[in-house]
Amino acid sequence: MEQPEIFPGRIRLGMVGGGEGAFIGAVHRHAARLDDRYQLLAGALSSSPEASQRSGLALGLDPSRIYGDYRQMAQAEAAREDGIEAVVIVTPNHMHAPVARAFLEAGINVICDKPVTTTSEDARMLQTLAEERGLLFAVTHNYSAYPLVRHAQQMVREGTLGAIRVVQVQYAQDWLAAPLEQDGHKQATWRTDPAKSGGGAIGDIGSHAWQLADFITGLKLESLSAQLSSFVPGRAIDDDVQVLLRYEGGARGMLWASQVAVGCTNELRIRVVGSEGGIEWAQEQPNELRWTPLGEPTRIITRGSAAMNAAGARTSRVPAGHPEGYIDAFGALYSEIACHLLARRSGGDPGAAQFPTIADGVRGVLFIETVQASSLAGGVWTKVS
Amino acid sequence: MEQPEIFPGRIRLGMVGGGEGAFIGAVHRHAARLDDRYQLLAGALSSSPEASQRSGLALGLDPSRIYGDYRQMAQAEAAREDGIEAVVIVTPNHMHAPVARAFLEAGINVICDKPVTTTSEDARMLQTLAEERGLLFAVTHNYSAYPLVRHAQQMVREGTLGAIRVVQVQYAQDWLAAPLEQDGHKQATWRTDPAKSGGGAIGDIGSHAWQLADFITGLKLESLSAQLSSFVPGRAIDDDVQVLLRYEGGARGMLWASQVAVGCTNELRIRVVGSEGGIEWAQEQPNELRWTPLGEPTRIITRGSAAMNAAGARTSRVPAGHPEGYIDAFGALYSEIACHLLARRSGGDPGAAQFPTIADGVRGVLFIETVQASSLAGGVWTKVS
Amino acid sequence: MEQPEIFPGRIRLGMVGGGEGAFIGAVHRHAARLDDRYQLLAGALSSSPEASQRSGLALGLDPSRIYGDYRQMAQAEAAREDGIEAVVIVTPNHMHAPVARAFLEAGINVICDKPVTTTSEDARMLQTLAEERGLLFAVTHNYSAYPLVRHAQQMVREGTLGAIRVVQVQYAQDWLAAPLEQDGHKQATWRTDPAKSGGGAIGDIGSHAWQLADFITGLKLESLSAQLSSFVPGRAIDDDVQVLLRYEGGARGMLWASQVAVGCTNELRIRVVGSEGGIEWAQEQPNELRWTPLGEPTRIITRGSAAMNAAGARTSRVPAGHPEGYIDAFGALYSEIACHLLARRSGGDPGAAQFPTIADGVRGVLFIETVQASSLAGGVWTKVS
Amino acid sequence: MEQPEIFPGRIRLGMVGGGEGAFIGAVHRHAARLDDRYQLLAGALSSSPEASQRSGLALGLDPSRIYGDYRQMAQAEAAREDGIEAVVIVTPNHMHAPVARAFLEAGINVICDKPVTTTSEDARMLQTLAEERGLLFAVTHNYSAYPLVRHAQQMVREGTLGAIRVVQVQYAQDWLAAPLEQDGHKQATWRTDPAKSGGGAIGDIGSHAWQLADFITGLKLESLSAQLSSFVPGRAIDDDVQVLLRYEGGARGMLWASQVAVGCTNELRIRVVGSEGGIEWAQEQPNELRWTPLGEPTRIITRGSAAMNAAGARTSRVPAGHPEGYIDAFGALYSEIACHLLARRSGGDPGAAQFPTIADGVRGVLFIETVQASSLAGGVWTKVS
Repeated sequence: MEQPEIFPGRIRLGMVGGGEGAFIGAVHRHAARLDDRYQLLAGALSSSPEASQRSGLALGLDPSRIYGDYRQMAQAEAAREDGIEAVVIVTPNHMHAPVARAFLEAGINVICDKPVTTTSEDARMLQTLAEERGLLFAVTHNYSAYPLVRHAQQMVREGTLGAIRVVQVQYAQDWLAAPLEQDGHKQATWRTDPAKSGGGAIGDIGSHAWQLADFITGLKLESLSAQLSSFVPGRAIDDDVQVLLRYEGGARGMLWASQVAVGCTNELRIRVVGSEGGIEWAQEQPNELRWTPLGEPTRIITRGSAAMNAAGARTSRVPAGHPEGYIDAFGALYSEIACHLLARRSGGDPGAAQFPTIADGVRGVLFIETVQASSLAGGVWTKVS
Repeated sequence: MEQPEIFPGRIRLGMVGGGEGAFIGAVHRHAARLDDRYQLLAGALSSSPEASQRSGLALGLDPSRIYGDYRQMAQAEAAREDGIEAVVIVTPNHMHAPVARAFLEAGINVICDKPVTTTSEDARMLQTLAEERGLLFAVTHNYSAYPLVRHAQQMVREGTLGAIRVVQVQYAQDWLAAPLEQDGHKQATWRTDPAKSGGGAIGDIGSHAWQLADFITGLKLESLSAQLSSFVPGRAIDDDVQVLLRYEGGARGMLWASQVAVGCTNELRIRVVGSEGGIEWAQEQPNELRWTPLGEPTRIITRGSAAMNAAGARTSRVPAGHPEGYIDAFGALYSEIACHLLARRSGGDPGAAQFPTIADGVRGVLFIETVQASSLAGGVWTKVS
Repeated sequence: MEQPEIFPGRIRLGMVGGGEGAFIGAVHRHAARLDDRYQLLAGALSSSPEASQRSGLALGLDPSRIYGDYRQMAQAEAAREDGIEAVVIVTPNHMHAPVARAFLEAGINVICDKPVTTTSEDARMLQTLAEERGLLFAVTHNYSAYPLVRHAQQMVREGTLGAIRVVQVQYAQDWLAAPLEQDGHKQATWRTDPAKSGGGAIGDIGSHAWQLADFITGLKLESLSAQLSSFVPGRAIDDDVQVLLRYEGGARGMLWASQVAVGCTNELRIRVVGSEGGIEWAQEQPNELRWTPLGEPTRIITRGSAAMNAAGARTSRVPAGHPEGYIDAFGALYSEIACHLLARRSGGDPGAAQFPTIADGVRGVLFIETVQASSLAGGVWTKVS
Repeated sequence: MEQPEIFPGRIRLGMVGGGEGAFIGAVHRHAARLDDRYQLLAGALSSSPEASQRSGLALGLDPSRIYGDYRQMAQAEAAREDGIEAVVIVTPNHMHAPVARAFLEAGINVICDKPVTTTSEDARMLQTLAEERGLLFAVTHNYSAYPLVRHAQQMVREGTLGAIRVVQVQYAQDWLAAPLEQDGHKQATWRTDPAKSGGGAIGDIGSHAWQLADFITGLKLESLSAQLSSFVPGRAIDDDVQVLLRYEGGARGMLWASQVAVGCTNELRIRVVGSEGGIEWAQEQPNELRWTPLGEPTRIITRGSAAMNAAGARTSRVPAGHPEGYIDAFGALYSEIACHLLARRSGGDPGAAQFPTIADGVRGVLFIETVQASSLAGGVWTKVS
């Protein structure tokens, strides 16, 4: 990566959520640690103070900076001279908005998991608040940091594919093909609870698929027609979503997200077709991008190879042939955010570092809401505002 | 295959279309020849009598059975004691109906390329006619004869996948990504002429994708929402189609067919997801079927292996590991049809031999018309009658 | 293919072997039939006259041309004005030499399965005989007719890969991983009988691997070091062979052939590495060739695409994306041979048509014998004469 | 992983080598950081004191613990109460022995890159020294920590594959296909200098291939026949190696390592065939293992899935479908070593944690020397001592 291996003064970080029984919190911690740009110093890791305390101690936090309540944490950290510079929010989705609000109001930068909120009203509120306070608000759409996703975005920007015609994107899993939530599976339980997740397959993974297409193509979505399904008996939320997409300028797309797709572990795939070429990328084989120039053989662009462009090289860490994966890309996203946090601290320039912001988060929630509205109305074509 | 290698008395065959400059006619001839169940004896191979004559001689036909006109051929062959038992129709689509009608009226069985006609009215007329005359009418949806497609159909029928939830099917090509029809490319010219093809991507390949899903799942389509696009400037017909599908019983599907998908040669792929398992098959690697039982590792079912069921074995010709392809499957379809033609001749039993008939052809044209109607109306959900 | 679809006067063909219970005979018949250049007219299909008769009738042969004995057939056919122009020999290996000799002596061209004989002495005898009589002697190394194998040969000849450095070739199967021959499996029984096969894995499939490397690279083999193994208890012949190869000019290679490689159906693969590029091809996915120019991304050359060279186009039958397979390539080899047989008949020019001859057959048997000698001597480096 | 996310008291770590211009040092640092079990506190990062100082400061080390000389570092750190508990050696190969010796003599545990030394004499000296002093000596054969490699080892140990018959292993790269060392490329220069590397392809990557086969199968190597080649003009060392292997008990193997294999980025692949099943794994797609039980379809075992055994789960970090890669596995190896270092510190039990030790290192160097001896003698079969 085009960054010093060691960062001049690590970012002081706090975390809300991510305690006992959580999944994504540990991923964020690995990601933050990978390039050594952050130091985790404070946390309100669980909704129960006791669990938060246990989790914080297990992570080696100073007991005085383990909080039982996120509001208390926001105020206490804001009051310290050595208080955290940014908070990572990895709670269930319905808590993102109140937690983010508390930290923004306390003047602390926010790194929040996706979808950023469960209503667009909340998302806009956070956007306004972050703008008013001049604070950074990152949304961890981690797939956008994969080197070959960056490479692909750059190809589209440079016009290598010509005018974009078709976008095919899918995120297919099978972990919810059986009714896990009825057996007390913690991750399944909150993710299939409409009150906590704000959306099933559409919120949990459809939002990633949307963002991947949005990030690579930069196309503006005009309208969509969607059908949400709940295939597993007794499930209170969608576990499969199918969407037709119309983009401004005439491009057309299809998006499929499923959590009941038996045979798919984590098949996030995208194909972008333009008048001059097509590309294909799959998250489970992230070190290869297939590129076909019109009328020529398909080329395999390998991460780390000489054929990778500068945008890809930016988030690539090890040489070609040494596979990078999920934590590598998540870590790269954290390093991109760190460049901006450092620039804020020191008044420097973050350079080409980029990450999804609350503006993307707002659009993501609007996408989810539009899908839900279309489906509820029987799949009618619905404008994306 | 569970059939004698050599057939007791080859089927006497004629062909309409398939002369100079044609593509699919030669494929039909290879297919008919492969298992030695047919002998091509007569033809009206071109709309021009001179070209028909040249083509027929090049194929070694008896000059007296090379016709300049299909009507003349139908009558002459019907009048011969050794006249053809079946005619293969491989003209551009708009000629399928009049040609098929002429042969049915002459009492000759029909093997017709797809889509069977350009209007459902014509298709129903042919269906009625074939039924009244008691004649065989096969539609060459060749992909349905691939051994692992047969295997997949049998899996669904036996309930191995449980209740079907999701169908994802695509047929993506890129040969029309540039405006070939504006340079006089013969195949491109008639296929992009609405008057001759009755549909662009939807008719040429969308119909294959529909049939593959229909054949494997046996699900009844209830309604659909479609968007047709013509991406190539100046093109008079759709070159891309995207469809959401609703099946009776609650299954949901997506269908994409494209002729501008740069990077795709002939990507006909299908994934069928049920409550108890999922399968995936791709026409370009037709000797493998991926099957994932719920909660277990994915298995690779290899054509010709001990894991292939009897339905698959029926159309499999060489041992596992010796790849079969397009002509093999097309030839297997011809052999299935031959079993029925022989049974008609001799009063025997065609056994388990199966092939798509005019009934499938009618449904296929209705599917195309429904897609076109939905798209024309702005993508509204439209019932499939 | 660059040939007329229908041949001016089909080649009159006979067959020795290939009757009841045989495998490869039916493949040869399908292959010969595919392009309609041959007509099977006579046969001595089994070593038992009764079985020969039954098999011949099932194939629709004229009873007067079904023979109980190959010598009788050679003489009778040679005496007919309309006698066969070529005989296909598909017996177990140990019978190739006497059968071929009988037909050569009767003045009839020979198409023989591989390995051409079980001793190099016999092979040379046949070579001499064919040369003296001026007869065609084809050896059906079918893999050499795959379009992308032809393409690869042409790339090497044109110097696209630079100086060849490394050849890696394997042919791995698993059908003999269990002792099938002890249960009366007909194919397994003669193929594992040293007296009938002249070699186990080395003869049955190692010879194909050798020929594929030989055909593509044109390199002259200098010496080798080999170890044959018989892994299955009770087996009388090698079921696995591993060889190091030294070519003239400094190239180095490895060859592995195995019939006990559980997990491999028919993995014939080759990689050729030169100073300017590398290629990789696998028989189970024969419609793709991977080509990497030095320092550039890997390209996928698709059979039938614009990127395929003329040598590949020569044996390619259907457009790109419609997969070709085993019978297609075998059929292409038969058509190449037919061009030569026709040229002999009519005095014409066979053009660029090519096929492995008895000269290749002799070298193939010498290769097998050298491998066996090296292994017997403990794996010492042994010159290839 | 079956370990606490945060370690009770991080291991105090030093590093020799890995300064400016190095490659593998940064990988070791990422790996050590990933699971937060180590803290890098001291270093002699370059052979030049000035460069060492610059590199150490860039890494945030306390200037008093940046050393210009490894001997000085060993003594100074040994003398400190808070001195390092282990040193990581990532110098060019010829320096491994003197550096390791210095730290062992100072009573400091060693984590050393591979090959552990350039002579077996040195390797044995280190083994003796480590044993005498009772110190830990880890050799970073990182590929042995991939979850599915652990899974594979466990499968072999449990007899799932039956008696092992064939081992096919390769490590093919192309980064040295051109004479980079003649243009001053730092990595290429020392790696192709016999005095510094102790072996070209055989030492750099052949040793990894050997170890992977050794780790998974546990088979004892009896003898080998090898040919080393230097294909690139002017190169002073082997850039390609081909080896036939004989194992005790009758298993046979082939090993290919190449740095000129145009088209291969980092193709470390292994296939292990036994009487009851076969497996295949490739480092560039490390999240899948193909397993074929005799007579059954191939299964794809996915890292993190329910089908992965406990040995695999031990080093797996994120859920299935979120790809892990090179740094993940390297980090898992560091965590395994950390379990042992902690047990030494606290007197606890390292449990099932395993890593390659100096004993493996000795055998690895003996393997390299045997290959070199065999090749030098013309490829004769040579016993492995």
